[in-house]
Amino acid sequence: MSSQDAKKKFEAVFPSLVEDLKENAKQYNLPANAMKWYEDSLNYNTMGGKLNRGLSVPDSASLLLEKPLTDSQYHATATLGWLTELLQAFFLVSDDIMDSSITRRGQPCWYKQPTVGMIAINDAFMLESSIYVLLKQHFKPHPSYVDFLELFHTVTFQTELGQLCDLITAPEDHVDLSKFSIQKHSFIVIYKTAYYSFYLPVALALHYLELATPKNLQICKDILIPLGEYFQIQDDYLDCFGSPETIGKIGTDIQDNKCSWLINQALQRASPEQRKVLDECYGRKDAKMEKEVKGVYEELGLEKVYLEYEQKAVGEIRGMIEKVDEGEGLKKSVFEGFLGKIYKRTK
Amino acid sequence: MSSQDAKKKFEAVFPSLVEDLKENAKQYNLPANAMKWYEDSLNYNTMGGKLNRGLSVPDSASLLLEKPLTDSQYHATATLGWLTELLQAFFLVSDDIMDSSITRRGQPCWYKQPTVGMIAINDAFMLESSIYVLLKQHFKPHPSYVDFLELFHTVTFQTELGQLCDLITAPEDHVDLSKFSIQKHSFIVIYKTAYYSFYLPVALALHYLELATPKNLQICKDILIPLGEYFQIQDDYLDCFGSPETIGKIGTDIQDNKCSWLINQALQRASPEQRKVLDECYGRKDAKMEKEVKGVYEELGLEKVYLEYEQKAVGEIRGMIEKVDEGEGLKKSVFEGFLGKIYKRTK
Repeated sequence: MSSQDAKKKFEAVFPSLVEDLKENAKQYNLPANAMKWYEDSLNYNTMGGKLNRGLSVPDSASLLLEKPLTDSQYHATATLGWLTELLQAFFLVSDDIMDSSITRRGQPCWYKQPTVGMIAINDAFMLESSIYVLLKQHFKPHPSYVDFLELFHTVTFQTELGQLCDLITAPEDHVDLSKFSIQKHSFIVIYKTAYYSFYLPVALALHYLELATPKNLQICKDILIPLGEYFQIQDDYLDCFGSPETIGKIGTDIQDNKCSWLINQALQRASPEQRKVLDECYGRKDAKMEKEVKGVYEELGLEKVYLEYEQKAVGEIRGMIEKVDEGEGLKKSVFEGFLGKIYKRTK
Repeated sequence: MSSQDAKKKFEAVFPSLVEDLKENAKQYNLPANAMKWYEDSLNYNTMGGKLNRGLSVPDSASLLLEKPLTDSQYHATATLGWLTELLQAFFLVSDDIMDSSITRRGQPCWYKQPTVGMIAINDAFMLESSIYVLLKQHFKPHPSYVDFLELFHTVTFQTELGQLCDLITAPEDHVDLSKFSIQKHSFIVIYKTAYYSFYLPVALALHYLELATPKNLQICKDILIPLGEYFQIQDDYLDCFGSPETIGKIGTDIQDNKCSWLINQALQRASPEQRKVLDECYGRKDAKMEKEVKGVYEELGLEKVYLEYEQKAVGEIRGMIEKVDEGEGLKKSVFEGFLGKIYKRTK
């Protein structure tokens, strides 16, 4: 199946989950205008993305089984995939408010809709709650039901810790590069992105197939967290050095005072004069100052620094994948699939 | 023990829970500034209230057992009580943003702190997540662990539904009294307040003591939801007719366009002329217009309407309490205690 067909098949599951959620809400005799609002929020905020996280639950399950999924296995793992997308929707709706963002996935942010505003905070809560409504409806009899609940709780909290560190380290309205460090960048990236984007989908597939032994989960963490860190560092790199035509957006990390991998590398290498330029120009909403920062990045050869990092990181990840012990049902192919999609991507 | 001593004993449990939460966060190597932020948010947002919800978990457990709790029973039920206070903190921090409130419990709202702002949204999430961290730390081996998780999920979602209905029915910046109705008032009150404030603490005590049979839970719901509705209607009444000296605040429901019980009673009874006054004056930030609305309330005799409602509601609740079947371990005294604290209160 082409990846476009796979996405279509996955998208086709969502309307039935919206029906399940509406059915659940009906027991409370929710007034009609509130029911419509809830449904609109579910559709607006959960659909329209790349769906990589969601798709990787059925994909991983099929690789673990080494055969195509039955219809019922597909529906169950796609449902778990949609729960990762609901978690992401919960984060994105609220992140957009906290970051004062304007657009998301090519349309106005939910809170920017004229009638929504700060009600979006409660809508974000309801997206999160919907995860547990669906888990109870679909997986209560599953032997891993409690593991599913605890996994979502833990990964949610980890992501919130990463978001907290990001928000207090790199506020958009107050530049202080002395707060940045490679260690903080690593913490933010791992907790804000890697756990929910890379570890969560594979851990869900393992729990669903009852293959989530402590050893298998540990191997997943050992490989997928560095892989997620590499993915985000690549993202930081592309934001500055990627071509806007291929990545589909114009990078804004420098102007937005982001605690990006590049600025942290630059801070480690900058001469006093270069540091002065960074202190004066980073995080300012000014195209000329942004260019000054990019000038320092070029002087420091950060493009080459990135490519060397990438070689090393990918080499280490490949080494770990080769050594995966498949004795408890884990499969190397799960990790190879992830790495293949990320390595040398241009968007 | 006096109620003040009971409150002190209960408050003394909280610092140990903060330590448990910090201990849990330490495994993630959280940077020191983020750890301090999390601790500050826990203390600022969870302490300082009346703690009625939290206190009623150990109180109810003791009444159910018909004897004082052992130290370990007290610590466990007080912990569950603090989880209801964490849930309340999660709601209040976010409600204050959504309502543009200025103060809470006599101090500035958390989001109004100069360094906090919209980061408060993520802090609210972390207060909610802390519930599940503590449940896992303290109750994972308890036979009712899954019931605790599901109870918090369900009650959280119910409260969010009530909040949604309230937000879209009575926005502060757009008055439209045709959106109000007795039915919507009842929905908002039951879901936004009664479930988490009245049903949740008793259901937690029942689950803790393994007395949460379907019949006992249903009786609790049948009594505590009308009791919670009565409590909120009384709150709406006191906001307008209570004495500011005894309730400790000046009521603002009329100026804030609240979907209060009083305005809904007035809408049902108003002549076309009186309706015109309500349409023109309700929900406006203007003391003179507020007085006009109060004038209509007096013309319609709403004080008497309330006192008649109260007699009827309290009579019905008493009738239900008398008929409680104690055969599966439930005790009438649990409900009598709640009713005693609410009936004829002046603040």
